[in-house]
Parts: sequence; structure tokens; C-alpha cells
Amino acid sequence: MDYKRRIHKFQAHFGKKGFEGALVAPGSNFYYLTGFNPLGTLERLFVLILPSEGLLTAIAPRLYEKELEEFNGEVVLWSDSENPYKIFATKIKETFKEGEKLLIDDTMPVGVFLKAKDIFDKYSLHPISPVISELREIKDKDEIKAHKKAAEIVDKVFYRFIEGKLEGKSERELANRIEYMIKNEFGADDVSFEPIVASGPNGANPHHRPSHRKIRKGDVVIFDYGAKYLGYCSDVTRTVVVGPPSEEVKKVYEIVKEAQETAVQKVAEGIPAEVVDATARGIISKYGYGEYFIHRTGHGLGIDVHEEPYISPGNKKILKDGMVFTIEPGIYLQGKFGVRIEDDVALVDKKGIRLTNADRELITL
Amino acid sequence: MDYKRRIHKFQAHFGKKGFEGALVAPGSNFYYLTGFNPLGTLERLFVLILPSEGLLTAIAPRLYEKELEEFNGEVVLWSDSENPYKIFATKIKETFKEGEKLLIDDTMPVGVFLKAKDIFDKYSLHPISPVISELREIKDKDEIKAHKKAAEIVDKVFYRFIEGKLEGKSERELANRIEYMIKNEFGADDVSFEPIVASGPNGANPHHRPSHRKIRKGDVVIFDYGAKYLGYCSDVTRTVVVGPPSEEVKKVYEIVKEAQETAVQKVAEGIPAEVVDATARGIISKYGYGEYFIHRTGHGLGIDVHEEPYISPGNKKILKDGMVFTIEPGIYLQGKFGVRIEDDVALVDKKGIRLTNADRELITL
Repeated sequence: MDYKRRIHKFQAHFGKKGFEGALVAPGSNFYYLTGFNPLGTLERLFVLILPSEGLLTAIAPRLYEKELEEFNGEVVLWSDSENPYKIFATKIKETFKEGEKLLIDDTMPVGVFLKAKDIFDKYSLHPISPVISELREIKDKDEIKAHKKAAEIVDKVFYRFIEGKLEGKSERELANRIEYMIKNEFGADDVSFEPIVASGPNGANPHHRPSHRKIRKGDVVIFDYGAKYLGYCSDVTRTVVVGPPSEEVKKVYEIVKEAQETAVQKVAEGIPAEVVDATARGIISKYGYGEYFIHRTGHGLGIDVHEEPYISPGNKKILKDGMVFTIEPGIYLQGKFGVRIEDDVALVDKKGIRLTNADRELITL
Repeated sequence: MDYKRRIHKFQAHFGKKGFEGALVAPGSNFYYLTGFNPLGTLERLFVLILPSEGLLTAIAPRLYEKELEEFNGEVVLWSDSENPYKIFATKIKETFKEGEKLLIDDTMPVGVFLKAKDIFDKYSLHPISPVISELREIKDKDEIKAHKKAAEIVDKVFYRFIEGKLEGKSERELANRIEYMIKNEFGADDVSFEPIVASGPNGANPHHRPSHRKIRKGDVVIFDYGAKYLGYCSDVTRTVVVGPPSEEVKKVYEIVKEAQETAVQKVAEGIPAEVVDATARGIISKYGYGEYFIHRTGHGLGIDVHEEPYISPGNKKILKDGMVFTIEPGIYLQGKFGVRIEDDVALVDKKGIRLTNADRELITL
């Protein structure tokens, strides 16, 4: 990834919007700009100062000295005997004039903010995410390649874990096994979030966390998990059934599949996000299940597993080449079961292409 | 755990210190006060408002409705069509007079803070952690029981993974396997942090992250990992050697073991934290390795894996019954190897007792 170019592009972008600088804390914006992922801790100040032109400065604990040798900017290291907030304040004063408009990282903890409050009070601070996400939401070729690789990993994991027997295993056990496979067997950096396994009636809660409930015959089971590759996320959901499915399960599954397929086909450059959402929602409603589709159709993917663009009702954001997002309609029947099918879709050459490709037919195990 | 009592105690505590209220975001303080662990996200406001007397209020997204049915306070749910920050501001105005001193959660993201800045600017805000940690650092019997259980889990994990062969496995592979064992096999909720496996020269960096380096004959290997049980952390380090140890390895190991043992023996109610640190440091220095012990001797354990009391040079905090912390001296020889031995220690009946008890002799595998 060409971080130098990214930094320049970001500087030019926020400069044009009338901001004089940006303050970035460890987290996904930091990684996007530098490829560097220090542990974000309240204990030790680590922050980037970017003016709209010229070199950026990293203020970093001395223990990162070696990792910062090749850093693309000025590095000010502080030792345990120094007050890093004093160094930070001095550097801000040197770089910006009082009253100037600065972007600040939304993910910075308030504990850090309060320690620098005296200096921050002299500036007009604005959240960084609406501005930087205008760049982050458009992926370049290298980023799409990383997403594609992350998606291939979760496809492989799916075929691996459906080889085994599900019946008698707990949701937790299966989720742990999926996490281990992702981390260990296919070259991912990490999971992109803790895997979700929701079986039987638990599947009716889209926010379910894996429990000690054991999978039994007749269960519909939702698997929702993702991998990171070079920092970029995938996120996939498949729903399977243990033993022969009931007529209701088959019917609901086919509706969700049709909704998902039609929404994926709708993706194209120039279409507003809400239209893709309405496409999936329209099909589910047509079959009378509208009130059981209780969440948005999808979300953007990138270094964060939830980012712009959100594929949600009312979101008029225009889809563009380079965007990567999920399409994941579902139907949730309280006390019974849930069905969700999720793929990652990238907008390339004005068309939506699926990055995840594991089987979408109803699989009976 | 008796959350009702905890909340009252915290209210009385900060009230006595001259604060009128506290604002708590999802995270360890939230869990400490409520036993509730919502995902802390920038996307959806979830916050507790505690006056110094009377009922607390939770402002929560409607999707948590069911989980909050038994909640120990007033619950204000907001729906996607509402602006939660408006509800939050109104509630703060109703509860506190302008200019009053309020505690605010250090871990709250700045993105949340900026959205509520207009209302926050009418109050005097102070970080919550120095105040709440005065309670959190003293564990009650139930908390010590949870720590003990978390410690027993990591002891079991140690004996399990030294059964297998280390040679030829990568650090990453071993770290993933340890994480899987913790999560899956002994009843832990979760890991308390991503396991560290540092082999050969990598062991000389106490901040090393597991790499693809494969363990080879002669390697000294550091394993540093922890489990959570009912939300409470353990954190243990053992150093083993693959194949017969060199004289230098044996010597360094014995020094670290003596330093660790002597520091653990030093723990008693009424002793300042710095004295325990100086005890470990004194022994390592006596043998001429003082400059190679490059971090503090330990840190407190609780819901966070790093919290008060810090066992560090210059920390005059007096150790008290109910405190739980690590004792983990180490020696780091650049380009060669590192040795660290870490146990969890609880102060009970005025004496330090080890919670982790896996073998501390040098194990050759």
C-alpha cells in the first residue's frame, strides 16, 4: 500500500474542506494512513499530527523507537520521565494558529482528550470520520485484492467446518473452532470480529452471542464470521439446517436467498445505497415477511468491519467504483429460528462483484 | 456480585470527594457497576448517568430492551428515529446544575464526547478512573474467587501445552492454540489479552507479537497469556527451554526466579508498591543484570488486565488487603533471549498469596 500517497491525498482533501490539520489516534485511521498498528492505550500517548501541507509528526513512546525507524514523517519520542502531553501541546502550538479548524480522531479516548483539553480548547475541533471516510470508502486495487483474499479465507473456512458434525456441539465450541481456523489455517492476520454461531431460536436474535446451547436435530444454524488480511476485513453469513428442513424453513430460506441475490444484482455505480436496501426489503415484504427483517441490508467493509457505505433505508449515498460492502438480508422468527445470507460485494468497473462465494443453497447437514 | 451495593458505594465515594455525578460508557467501569457488557460502539449511544444519590439512569439503544428488563435503575430506550444525544442532554440538565463537577469515563470515545460537547461544556468534567479505581483496586471475596478461578485455568493450560512438541511450530500457531484452549476447554469467558509467544531472540522484546518464526532446538521460549472468568483476569508468564539450556540461560533463569520469589514474599499489607518493585530489581541488579530488567515489576489485575496498583519504581501506593496484581520480573538480552516469570498475587489476611501455581522451575522440553 502506498502510504505516502494516502497521507498526501488526505492532507489535500481536508485542506480543501477548510481544515488546517488532523490529530489521529491509534486505530483504523492510524493504520490507514501509516500501515502501523500500535496498541491504543490510555496509558501511553501515541498520536499523529498532520498539517494540511508538509510533514506529519508522530509523538510516540520510546518503546516504539525501533518500529518507527522507517516512519514516513517526523518522530518525537518521549521517555517515562517526560510529560508527553506537554510535548504534544508544544507541537500543536508550533504547527497551528489559535482558532484554526482541526479534525480529531473519533476513536481517541476521552481520557487522552481531557489531558490535552487546555490546548484543544484553543482550536475548533471536528470529528475526523466523516472526512476521512470519504477517502477510506473508495478502495484502490491493492485494497480490493486484500478484501478478496480475506473473502477467500472465509469461504475455505465454511467448507472446512461443514465437513464436521454439528449436532451435539455447543455454539461457543463452534465459534471458537471457527476463530482458530481463521487465525491458524489460511493465512489471515486475525478474525475481523468474534464469530457468531446462533442455533435454533437463538438465530432469531441478530445480536446473539454464542452460548453453551448444543446444536440438535432440526436446528437452523446461522454462522456469521470474518477474517482480516493485510488489515482488510471480510464478513460472511451462511445458514444451514441440521436434519431435513421443515416447509417453513425451506420457504423462508428461499425468500432470503432471492432477496439477497436480487439486491446483489441491483448494485451498480450511480445507484443510491437506499435503493439496494429497498430491493432486498421489497422482496421480503412481497412475501409477507417485511416486519421480520429487522436490520439494515448491509454495511461497508474496510479496515473496520462496519464503515461507510451503510446499505440502509434512507441512505442516499451514491455507490461508486471501489466501494466494498456486505449484502445481508435476514428473516427472524421469534421463538423459532432465523435465516441470514451475507456476501461481500465490491464495485468494480461499475458493477457489483461478489467476493465471497461459498454455496448459497440451503445445506442440510 | 452485588451490583446494587457497588453502585451505592461508588455514589457515596465520589459524593464525598465533591463530585455531583458520573457518566459511564460501555467498558470495564460499566461492567464493574452493572455486570453488563454491551458492545461499546461509536455507532449507538449507550451511557449511564449516576447522580451522587438516588437512582442511576441508562440511556440505551432499543435493541437492548430485553437485556435491560432487570436493570438496576431507570432505563431510557431510544429508537433509530430519535436523536439519543438530545435525550442525553435533557437528562443531564434535569439531573445536574450547571457548573457542577462530574466524572466522565476515560474510555468514552471522543466521537461521543464531541456530539455532546454543548452540554458537557456547561459542567466541570474530570476523569473517572482515579476515583473509581480506588474502589476497583480492592477486591471483595467474590472477585478474588473469580480471579482464583481464572488463575487455575491458565495453570491447566500450561500443563496441557507443554505436553505437546514445541519444536517446528511457529509462535503464531502456539499462541492461537493457547487462545483456543483458554476459550474452549476450561470454562473461561475469554482470553484476557492475545497470548504472547516469544522465542529465541524475540524473547528479548517484552512487547513482541507472535510471529511466523518457528521454534528450534536451543530456543528459550516465553509464554505470556491470561484468561477471564466472570469478567476477571488472570495473567501468567512461564519461560521454558527447548533442548538442554546453556549455562547462561540457567544462570539468568535462576536470577529471575529468585527475584520473583523474593518480591512475592515481600508482599504484605502496608508495604508501598515501590518496595516490592525495588525488591525484585535489587536482586537482579545484585547479579549485574539491572540494566536488562527494562519494565515495571507488575500491574494490578481486575476487570482490566492492566489496572491499579502498578508495582513500579516510585509508586508509593500502599498495598492493602483485597488487591490483586502480577509480579513479573524479567531479564532481556538483545539478540539472544529473554526470561520472565509472572504470577498473580492476591493480598488476603495481610499476606500475599499466589493465585497461579504452575511449575516455576526451568522446564526443558
